[in-house]
Amino acid sequence: MDTQTRQVNSSEVAPTQQQKPTTTPHVVIVGGGFGGLQVAKELGRQPVHVTIIDRHNFHLFQPMLYQVATAGLSPSDISNPIRAILEKQNNTGTLMAEVTGIDLDEQQVLLGDRQAVHYDYLVLATGATSNYFGHPEWQQLAPGLKSVNDALAVRRTVLSAFEAAEREPDEQKRKALLTFVLVGGGPTGVELAGAIAELAHQSLKCNFRHIDLSMTRIILVQGPDRILPGFPATLAQRASKQLQQMGVEIKTGEHVKEVREDGVMVGDEHLATENIIWTAGVKASPAGEWLHADVDHDGRVKVQSNLSVPGHSNIFVIGDTALVTQNGKHLPGLAPVAIQEGKYVASVIASRTTGGTAGRSPFHYFDKGTLATVGRGFGIVDIGPLRFSGLLAWLAWLLVHIFFLIGFRNRILVLLEYAWTYITFQRGTRIILPENDVRQP
Amino acid sequence: MDTQTRQVNSSEVAPTQQQKPTTTPHVVIVGGGFGGLQVAKELGRQPVHVTIIDRHNFHLFQPMLYQVATAGLSPSDISNPIRAILEKQNNTGTLMAEVTGIDLDEQQVLLGDRQAVHYDYLVLATGATSNYFGHPEWQQLAPGLKSVNDALAVRRTVLSAFEAAEREPDEQKRKALLTFVLVGGGPTGVELAGAIAELAHQSLKCNFRHIDLSMTRIILVQGPDRILPGFPATLAQRASKQLQQMGVEIKTGEHVKEVREDGVMVGDEHLATENIIWTAGVKASPAGEWLHADVDHDGRVKVQSNLSVPGHSNIFVIGDTALVTQNGKHLPGLAPVAIQEGKYVASVIASRTTGGTAGRSPFHYFDKGTLATVGRGFGIVDIGPLRFSGLLAWLAWLLVHIFFLIGFRNRILVLLEYAWTYITFQRGTRIILPENDVRQP
Repeated sequence: MDTQTRQVNSSEVAPTQQQKPTTTPHVVIVGGGFGGLQVAKELGRQPVHVTIIDRHNFHLFQPMLYQVATAGLSPSDISNPIRAILEKQNNTGTLMAEVTGIDLDEQQVLLGDRQAVHYDYLVLATGATSNYFGHPEWQQLAPGLKSVNDALAVRRTVLSAFEAAEREPDEQKRKALLTFVLVGGGPTGVELAGAIAELAHQSLKCNFRHIDLSMTRIILVQGPDRILPGFPATLAQRASKQLQQMGVEIKTGEHVKEVREDGVMVGDEHLATENIIWTAGVKASPAGEWLHADVDHDGRVKVQSNLSVPGHSNIFVIGDTALVTQNGKHLPGLAPVAIQEGKYVASVIASRTTGGTAGRSPFHYFDKGTLATVGRGFGIVDIGPLRFSGLLAWLAWLLVHIFFLIGFRNRILVLLEYAWTYITFQRGTRIILPENDVRQP
Repeated sequence: MDTQTRQVNSSEVAPTQQQKPTTTPHVVIVGGGFGGLQVAKELGRQPVHVTIIDRHNFHLFQPMLYQVATAGLSPSDISNPIRAILEKQNNTGTLMAEVTGIDLDEQQVLLGDRQAVHYDYLVLATGATSNYFGHPEWQQLAPGLKSVNDALAVRRTVLSAFEAAEREPDEQKRKALLTFVLVGGGPTGVELAGAIAELAHQSLKCNFRHIDLSMTRIILVQGPDRILPGFPATLAQRASKQLQQMGVEIKTGEHVKEVREDGVMVGDEHLATENIIWTAGVKASPAGEWLHADVDHDGRVKVQSNLSVPGHSNIFVIGDTALVTQNGKHLPGLAPVAIQEGKYVASVIASRTTGGTAGRSPFHYFDKGTLATVGRGFGIVDIGPLRFSGLLAWLAWLLVHIFFLIGFRNRILVLLEYAWTYITFQRGTRIILPENDVRQP
């Protein structure tokens, strides 16, 4: 044990008997998202000790985060405590801690506070954050949608805008309050646009006395020449049409040049708005910096074909932080990619500890297809030869996502919330959680 | 319209045509808790305009707030948007705004930002906050439980303590992290103690690898010589016994002399703890200051027998902010008191506008009885001659509370969460929502 850092109790050492692990290899996983959690689950019955570290105490089902942001779900409907998920894996421990770096020489994950965890194998699955493309100052004005707090911030922005408009006497300001600009036309931007349109034109319709909610403008700005570039053009076109029918304005081939207090500059046009939401891109977590590894311009680590880091055969990077190329294309930052990468890396590690052969053939992603939802009862599905849109695609989206949710409770609650919203046109979590503690009455 | 303030659009004035109300009287209600909401509902069909102002956009069902604090419920399970509740009342508008004072001469409620709302009748139902009895600095170390943010802060404190203990190598510090001191032995303190005991000894039992959760200490400190002073002594005794069986230590007749970083001084004894929760008392909102009215030592306004403020027959104070004496006793700060006061005040106002006679006989509170819950399947009931405890009392508590929840969705969700917890011993909302936005990975 070195003098700089103090060994933190990892799964095989009791707090009072701190020592480096002996014979059983210690696998440390950083990040409890789709990728990291998959590695931990796969290693549950292998002859290894596993420690999974996350700065949150929960796994978040990100594909439904837009529903938290638009008052359809509560954060806990799509979250599970990581240590509860892994409760029955006796070889696995969970630590809630913020990783600050990696000591490659000593093979230690640094947790700040002079604490460290020794690893034999290390898996970094630390995800991504919103990318403001060199303008970090825009973040304050245009929240992204990557974390639970992001979602609550977006919900606060959206719901507060209607409240502020209701008591705003100035017409110009009222218009700006009722204008929502969504930057980024990927699945998240599309889902948000649809949900905000439903909120304004259905759920909130009879709730206000002064503002006319049919005046609400929802503008989706997309740099490329069409929305949903990850989908076939025909499906994207149907999604566009559906959004337009819901009252969403779509501006494609336009770039946001500036985000300001009073709105955004889209090309040469100024859109006066108080509400900007940013889903235009992601950048990887700083795992590449921790490793001093070669990264691309979004910070993704260039891994080898077995997902290990060049020069460190016992360190793997998976999920949104890894740059994996297949058939000349970068794999997208999707849950199925992270999950398959997690499974693969677990098999490589298991194989090495037991003398098996897995991991000698490179990782290969099998694309099972993609689904997205546009709004109430309208989805798009692209699975192999199957391409369809509409109610059936929406139901497919819903069922697939409920299937992948963790736990009976969350599945039931999410299904109930969707059913309730579908039947009543209402949204169940329309409460503005204050940003700071307001204790005075 | 005066030059200092600008009239905010209240229910009868369109934003662009701001003017004082003409013939139809304007009733302004400040506070959307049990009392204020009741006034608004009762006035829904009366020939008045109603504006209800709250700094939150939701009504909170406070009796179940301890469940949000102990990871059993989500905030939105027990909250409803005020404007959604009153959606169908065409004579009623809702404003989300922070009231900063009252201009008695101009009959205006001041909203800061130089905005104001004119009233003909004013009802102040602004509630209460935690009372630290002259030690406001204790609040940082010992959160109370009056608001949603309070509940999320308590949840964060409780769940984070177990997480921190799991990685704490120092035994003394670990013990302090696993010690919970609840100051105040009223219903809220008792409910919290029971729920934390369940969390430590049941839900979390198999989730940790290093700490022994049976070492968790839960200490309930109560100044008076017994807990639950609002209940008959026999029932309080049974509740005490139940708590002790659940592993809660009860210290009655003891006062907290100091709250420090390293724990609390209870009498001359120092309890080392990282977790202090304060339910020892409440103080009224600053409504008394706004009115320059006569208040008691907890800030409650001394109202007349018809709940109006002396010298202002058109201003009423109800709920936790009002000091109402009946049979020589002050009425307690309970939802039924606020609701009955709200009904009474609405009838007084309606009567005055229509020339009726209500409000000539003084307000009289009819005590329908009290219920409390101690923990999993154990409640106490005191309704007239009926006094019982145990499972049946717990079911009675649950049914009464679910009945008083607003809306089908919330009732179903809360019932499901209780059923799920009862059957599985798990708690559904065990996620730590970070206090500040953490956007870097």
